[in-house]
Amino acid sequence: MSRKYDAPAGLPPLKDLTIDNITANVHAINSQCRDPRTKYLFERLIVHLHDFARETHLNTSEWETALGYLVDVGKISTDVRHEFILLSDVLGLSLLVDSIDHPKPPGATEGTILGPFHTEDANTIEPGGLISHDPHGEALFAVCSIKDTQGRPIPAVSVDVWETDSKGFYDVQYAGRETADGRAVLTSDWDGMIYFKGIVPVPYPIPHDGPVGKLLSVLNRHPYRPSHIHFMFKKEGFDRLITALYLRGDPFESSDAVFGVKESLIIDLKRVGDVPGLAERHSISSDTRLLQYDFVLITEEETRALRNKAQTEAAR
Amino acid sequence: MSRKYDAPAGLPPLKDLTIDNITANVHAINSQCRDPRTKYLFERLIVHLHDFARETHLNTSEWETALGYLVDVGKISTDVRHEFILLSDVLGLSLLVDSIDHPKPPGATEGTILGPFHTEDANTIEPGGLISHDPHGEALFAVCSIKDTQGRPIPAVSVDVWETDSKGFYDVQYAGRETADGRAVLTSDWDGMIYFKGIVPVPYPIPHDGPVGKLLSVLNRHPYRPSHIHFMFKKEGFDRLITALYLRGDPFESSDAVFGVKESLIIDLKRVGDVPGLAERHSISSDTRLLQYDFVLITEEETRALRNKAQTEAAR
Repeated sequence: MSRKYDAPAGLPPLKDLTIDNITANVHAINSQCRDPRTKYLFERLIVHLHDFARETHLNTSEWETALGYLVDVGKISTDVRHEFILLSDVLGLSLLVDSIDHPKPPGATEGTILGPFHTEDANTIEPGGLISHDPHGEALFAVCSIKDTQGRPIPAVSVDVWETDSKGFYDVQYAGRETADGRAVLTSDWDGMIYFKGIVPVPYPIPHDGPVGKLLSVLNRHPYRPSHIHFMFKKEGFDRLITALYLRGDPFESSDAVFGVKESLIIDLKRVGDVPGLAERHSISSDTRLLQYDFVLITEEETRALRNKAQTEAAR
Repeated sequence: MSRKYDAPAGLPPLKDLTIDNITANVHAINSQCRDPRTKYLFERLIVHLHDFARETHLNTSEWETALGYLVDVGKISTDVRHEFILLSDVLGLSLLVDSIDHPKPPGATEGTILGPFHTEDANTIEPGGLISHDPHGEALFAVCSIKDTQGRPIPAVSVDVWETDSKGFYDVQYAGRETADGRAVLTSDWDGMIYFKGIVPVPYPIPHDGPVGKLLSVLNRHPYRPSHIHFMFKKEGFDRLITALYLRGDPFESSDAVFGVKESLIIDLKRVGDVPGLAERHSISSDTRLLQYDFVLITEEETRALRNKAQTEAAR
């Protein structure tokens, strides 16, 4: 105890803090933070946290319930179960942060939430390869183009694709998981095209046997997501696009538990036979369901310009 | 999938949600919640959470960092390590919630934060009994009265007292803990008095080997608390009082890491010999440090009236 810690120089003595002065005093002590962005984030966090408690007259029992709930969310989390992401999803925060951080100009493919089931261990497959080995799924063939906002094909884009099996579960939701399935990494060819074989996606409930399910139940909300396939596009110079395609007419199309559906991402499946020559070229049955979509990526430069514009407008 | 889930009746279709309309739509779906208080709490929570993200233009990497941090806080938590309480403490939320939920009229003993080290397994001891068996601590004798706001002694109050050992650690911070120490439960006698033997408290750092310590370091704040002894008073008909007494002149008196110090709770220790007859009555050395304090509890009725007044004023 050789060091003497009075109130740090220039700061008020932290004493006799009340409902009315606690916020300013927490700001004062946090103002010692050396990183301006972190300092700003905590300033706004403290304002909202304290205002929330003041406005609602939050009581000790509610505070205890909230902290106990957060412990539970942390405890159930693992490398393959991301309960805090799920919590962020059902509170609409994930969709919001994606919208803020990845603004899209008209014509570009809209983004949507990442969700808690992306992994980094998916197998890299060849064009036309299989991403799902579930024998009970209805076969699907996907033919997608990837272009820039000028309409030019983008080759060599790394594309992560992931979907559930026919029962509505991702591979990581099975206890005995040994290898990745229902997911793969593809690379777009010189014409900016990707092809893969998967299964027709099905609606499914988000994991609702844990704290997030309990919350949805308290809020009297259902846990279902409409049928969809996730996509993530990565290529140097382009803004990482995280999105998903949804099937039109799904029972949960208008009530996605995690707010991810956008009209521009809803598709109608066709049959491979609807496109002349496609079945023959890829040696697949013409009955196979066909997913076609034209993705449009924007450059990092375009994203930066849009972000700056939004921040300038917000600052006004 | 026999159930049909369109957007719940009367609610807008949840689709094409953006920075500008996500908040209203999350409110809409959450409005199905049947408990009015819970519904209100989530409405305000969503507003603050979303406003925070919008104002700060929170980016995906910051969002990931925040969620990963919350996982870490949950993971390190145990029955005896309450890292989320500690996080609430260093953000000033604990002090604020206590101030809101346990308002005090002039003359009543002020409350302060519970902290993460209260347990339910302390031994019940007789008047004058020992709460700390640390042979290295400086002996302390405490003589405290407990009265109501009319100055009448309150008998049969259950009083939890807890403090660290002479090294600044609570019993629960030791891995091999088998029995409670540095803590006890007393009962006030017919004159509303409690007496106990403890040790002179020392300043100590809050546990800073985990996520909260990391945060304090990022914020460039020290983790120390000034020397104090915790008290919790429980008696039917009275508002539970959680408070602590601090030693005047402590190096951290004006910079408590968790914002708990109040001028009215700072005391000067005397010697037992300063009070004629005390050493003889309790068979202790007159050199022993003496803690004297007069606690004033308020009734549940008084607390309710103060809460209602605060809520009425806030609603104006």
